[in-house]
Amino acid sequence: MKEYQKMSESQLQAEYNSLISNYNTFKAKGLSLDMSRGKPGKDQLDLSMGMLDTLSSSDIINSAYGMDARNYGLLDGLVETKKLFADMLEVEPKNIIVGGNSSLNMMYDAVARSMSFGVCGSTPWHKLPKVKFLCPVPGYDRHFAICELFNIEMINIPMTEEGPDMSMVADLVKNDDSIKGIWCVPMYSNPMGITYSDDVVKAFANLKPKAKDFRIYWDNAYCVHHLTNTPDTLLNIYDECEKVGSEDMVFEFASTSKISFSGAGVAALAASEKNLNFIKKLLTIQTIGFDKINQLRHTRFFKNVDTINEHMEKHKAIIAPKFDAVISALDANIAPYDIGSYVKPNGGYFISFNTMSGCAKRVCELCKDAGVVLTGAGATFPYGADPDDSNIRIAPTFPPVDELNTAIELFCYCVKIATLEKLISEKKAA
Amino acid sequence: MKEYQKMSESQLQAEYNSLISNYNTFKAKGLSLDMSRGKPGKDQLDLSMGMLDTLSSSDIINSAYGMDARNYGLLDGLVETKKLFADMLEVEPKNIIVGGNSSLNMMYDAVARSMSFGVCGSTPWHKLPKVKFLCPVPGYDRHFAICELFNIEMINIPMTEEGPDMSMVADLVKNDDSIKGIWCVPMYSNPMGITYSDDVVKAFANLKPKAKDFRIYWDNAYCVHHLTNTPDTLLNIYDECEKVGSEDMVFEFASTSKISFSGAGVAALAASEKNLNFIKKLLTIQTIGFDKINQLRHTRFFKNVDTINEHMEKHKAIIAPKFDAVISALDANIAPYDIGSYVKPNGGYFISFNTMSGCAKRVCELCKDAGVVLTGAGATFPYGADPDDSNIRIAPTFPPVDELNTAIELFCYCVKIATLEKLISEKKAA
Repeated sequence: MKEYQKMSESQLQAEYNSLISNYNTFKAKGLSLDMSRGKPGKDQLDLSMGMLDTLSSSDIINSAYGMDARNYGLLDGLVETKKLFADMLEVEPKNIIVGGNSSLNMMYDAVARSMSFGVCGSTPWHKLPKVKFLCPVPGYDRHFAICELFNIEMINIPMTEEGPDMSMVADLVKNDDSIKGIWCVPMYSNPMGITYSDDVVKAFANLKPKAKDFRIYWDNAYCVHHLTNTPDTLLNIYDECEKVGSEDMVFEFASTSKISFSGAGVAALAASEKNLNFIKKLLTIQTIGFDKINQLRHTRFFKNVDTINEHMEKHKAIIAPKFDAVISALDANIAPYDIGSYVKPNGGYFISFNTMSGCAKRVCELCKDAGVVLTGAGATFPYGADPDDSNIRIAPTFPPVDELNTAIELFCYCVKIATLEKLISEKKAA
Repeated sequence: MKEYQKMSESQLQAEYNSLISNYNTFKAKGLSLDMSRGKPGKDQLDLSMGMLDTLSSSDIINSAYGMDARNYGLLDGLVETKKLFADMLEVEPKNIIVGGNSSLNMMYDAVARSMSFGVCGSTPWHKLPKVKFLCPVPGYDRHFAICELFNIEMINIPMTEEGPDMSMVADLVKNDDSIKGIWCVPMYSNPMGITYSDDVVKAFANLKPKAKDFRIYWDNAYCVHHLTNTPDTLLNIYDECEKVGSEDMVFEFASTSKISFSGAGVAALAASEKNLNFIKKLLTIQTIGFDKINQLRHTRFFKNVDTINEHMEKHKAIIAPKFDAVISALDANIAPYDIGSYVKPNGGYFISFNTMSGCAKRVCELCKDAGVVLTGAGATFPYGADPDDSNIRIAPTFPPVDELNTAIELFCYCVKIATLEKLISEKKAA
């Protein structure tokens, strides 16, 4: 094992010079590769093309329940689409609102509504001196961006291998009624790829928040997005909440964006009837209804949860090799040097990589200069501020495998170079 | 001419008894008819079924401009869909954001954004002691509902045959910086069916609002929805504004909800680049993008404005006879008695009917009791409060013609009965 930390300054410098030479060879290739966002590849999108044949001009576009899906009406979605999402999220159809194409938009709306109108009769948040959200870190940059836009103060919550640090969460929400929410990606979390343990889910259900309008924003984006034959399992938070009477505390979000089409899927919100009744009273002023033809298209194509799971096997066959390629490259090029940590996820869209402290920004910069775009360092933390400057989110799904191999090879060189720069500068300073 | 106002009390009572007998015959039929909302009929929705064949599993779903419409991206819409809306609204593509399926949602978002974030850098409205909107009356109930929800005070502006009373509008906005907007349906207005005159549009462009964040909410919902061969024409407000440098003052909205599918169309916002740049900065936090496959479907089916106009001729062929049926019934049964006023519109979705003062609620109640649902009396005014209790919005498009004939026949009886009740009670009081 070639441990950089044991090398002398001149050994480090020699290694550095050799790596820079390799790096410059890459740079000369004029690459233009993107591993920045969790986008499905073209071949994944091809998997759902059959959906476009489920409705044609010769069809009757009635819902199975007699509703003309083409006309106005049905604010909360087609009966059969509500059932499909209810089955996927293991709740009742009465607990579902089917929305437009974007679960992010449903999350944004949930926060925006609370700012303007409160939650189930509470004071509108914009009238409060301070509103805070808890943010397990590293986490999803778009969640944090919503908070930042609405001037909601974000408090970092460390992630363990089982999920957020729940004793910290429980203490904070019990004592501070300005804490109104927590962002969670409970299954195959963005970016860590871990799934919350049963104990963590139970601890969520048993939170005793001081704020009556505290909600758990449960972004179950990857609930059927397995990468292995031994997938993780996630306890149903809604069931756990019902057991202790806390079901009003959860807003659960999901979509088909990474099941069917990222730009043209269907999103849904699951919540208690009390929450949904409040939301629907406001939603009916906002829109007459979302796109029910697309809801019908999805319901006809996917039919039920079993068919969705079969469909997800096809996604797995395409993207699992991409995750394997990244992990193999990291195992071969990073692990022996002990200069970064990562975990192979069982599902989801990301690999979370931690450099040595203070190297993440430099790695992203080196990659970018050589034509490979990563999610910006810091993006996985509120305000873009990673206190250790060490977390990098790798998104392997979009590039074809050959491009991905090139990109990750370059990435490994960049991690080594950034690490050596740090070590050499430390030696010089010592 | 049988003028009720000249009859004696006993003559009125005899007429009333005869009408009630007819009314009861209707009531016994157990009707269940709906003229309450501007919904297209099934045969109108059938006109766009070909759209469902424009994309199938054997197609490449790329935009003409190389974008995979299935994936994430393009916040403001496909290039070709922006062009289609730009041509329809006679602006440049750079002035368009293509949204989801609902222009109402885009209007709601425009107001919600202003409440939370202001307009192009102005103070967020929720921080102001008072925000007011001008509301030409009668108008569209869903516009008023948005204001009511956000606690925006609404000021009634009388409509003339040329549009809103512009000297009143100009005076108010010049002197009161709490007035932040005015709701307009400038072409085939909801519910009056009139089109704003050139002078009115020019007066709008030349407003000098005290509030820098005052915007004209120009809901051009019926811009291609003609009912005759001599359609109205509407001056392009954006052009008029550009002539005098006031183009930042307009938010224009449109959709295909009454061109293609009411539940699954495409909506758009047109505005100046300054406005759109501000909006896009916020919108990018709200969503990654709207449904681009549906945008592509619409663009492939409709191609250009000429094709849209040809398509609208088919709508006209279906719904113009329905408007004719209503107008004929009113001409035959109401006009000779001088007990109500109405205008035959050249386009749009509504006929606005004015009863004698104090009769509208009673007419709607009588209709409802006999199984015919109208838009609730008062709905065409802010807060549901029609000061004269006289305006009723008739929506003739949804029912088949035979049902419509029954419904309007009943409506005429109800107008007569309500009028006689009023006149008899006045005689008794005198």
